[in-house]
Amino acid sequence: MKLLEDRIRREGIVKDGEILRVDSFLNHQMDPALFREMAKEWHRRFADAGVTKILTIEASGIGLACITAEEFGCRAVFAKKSSGRNMDSDVYSTKIVSFTKGKEFDVIVSKRFLGPEDRVLILDDFLANGCALEGLMDLVRQSGATLCGCGIAIEKGFQGGGAKIRARGIQLESLAILLDMEGGELVFEEDGR
Amino acid sequence: MKLLEDRIRREGIVKDGEILRVDSFLNHQMDPALFREMAKEWHRRFADAGVTKILTIEASGIGLACITAEEFGCRAVFAKKSSGRNMDSDVYSTKIVSFTKGKEFDVIVSKRFLGPEDRVLILDDFLANGCALEGLMDLVRQSGATLCGCGIAIEKGFQGGGAKIRARGIQLESLAILLDMEGGELVFEEDGR
Repeated sequence: MKLLEDRIRREGIVKDGEILRVDSFLNHQMDPALFREMAKEWHRRFADAGVTKILTIEASGIGLACITAEEFGCRAVFAKKSSGRNMDSDVYSTKIVSFTKGKEFDVIVSKRFLGPEDRVLILDDFLANGCALEGLMDLVRQSGATLCGCGIAIEKGFQGGGAKIRARGIQLESLAILLDMEGGELVFEEDGR
Repeated sequence: MKLLEDRIRREGIVKDGEILRVDSFLNHQMDPALFREMAKEWHRRFADAGVTKILTIEASGIGLACITAEEFGCRAVFAKKSSGRNMDSDVYSTKIVSFTKGKEFDVIVSKRFLGPEDRVLILDDFLANGCALEGLMDLVRQSGATLCGCGIAIEKGFQGGGAKIRARGIQLESLAILLDMEGGELVFEEDGR
């Protein structure tokens, strides 16, 4: 998606050769006008999937999920990273290793908000090694819901997580696929859409 | 706001006499159609404030902030609860005690996203004792930005946080003000709007 690639080129900052910082518009400061265009694009790519629920993980995915759910006319659910004292005990649970924080944590979704009747589109801001997506897909599997596919803002194609997921026949729609960022130069896959 | 009060009455669950769970539409599962109506209401109440930025705190405020920022035609920023390894070192920082989790944590906002030129509307899902709002207002003060006011989805009027903030002349617009929830019965303040 050219609009997103252009924004990444303009505002993205490559740090230490492996971290792409896009916190001016995606995951600290958020630009809802851009999110709206991204949501429309996912809606176009999953138009016939019968999506009834958007699933994401806190915190960076929540804004995208909310605006995209509005586009699909459904609700969004975010998987929570820790169990507060007002949290359901009746939850689906899985473990995820965070790439940016370098540690493992539990994520949960209440069983009241995901079930066999749901058709789920998973959304997240980044896809690197795919751990977060694998965890979210595990939650969908536990719930008995149907997985329609996954939508990602920025896929780091060179880390291989996306290839593994596509190899299993899952529709994975990344709006910007980064092939290389060595030396701070960003190379995107032309997606031809 | 009657629409929100009605939803709370229909789907809210009072737990242990002091916790109101609204996770089916506000802070675990999220209903973007409701968020849109809430955003329009805040936009109406702060129409002349010249808001240039929405500030919230992760995670539950993010969806509301994003949709409300779209309504105001501006960007949203969420204060982060911990410092990941791709986070700016150049941040405003403050401490907040979480009512639901019963512990203190640091929250930060990058100095790149809040400055003297900004006119800030702070948003959050709940207001109880006011600690989260006080922390967010401290971040605004540190940045030199102008505080336009605060928008809250559900204020627990009986916990006193809102009264303290209004007493300082700050425009605090809570869309539902809960006066009592003893025995599980919800009593709202009629706001006459």
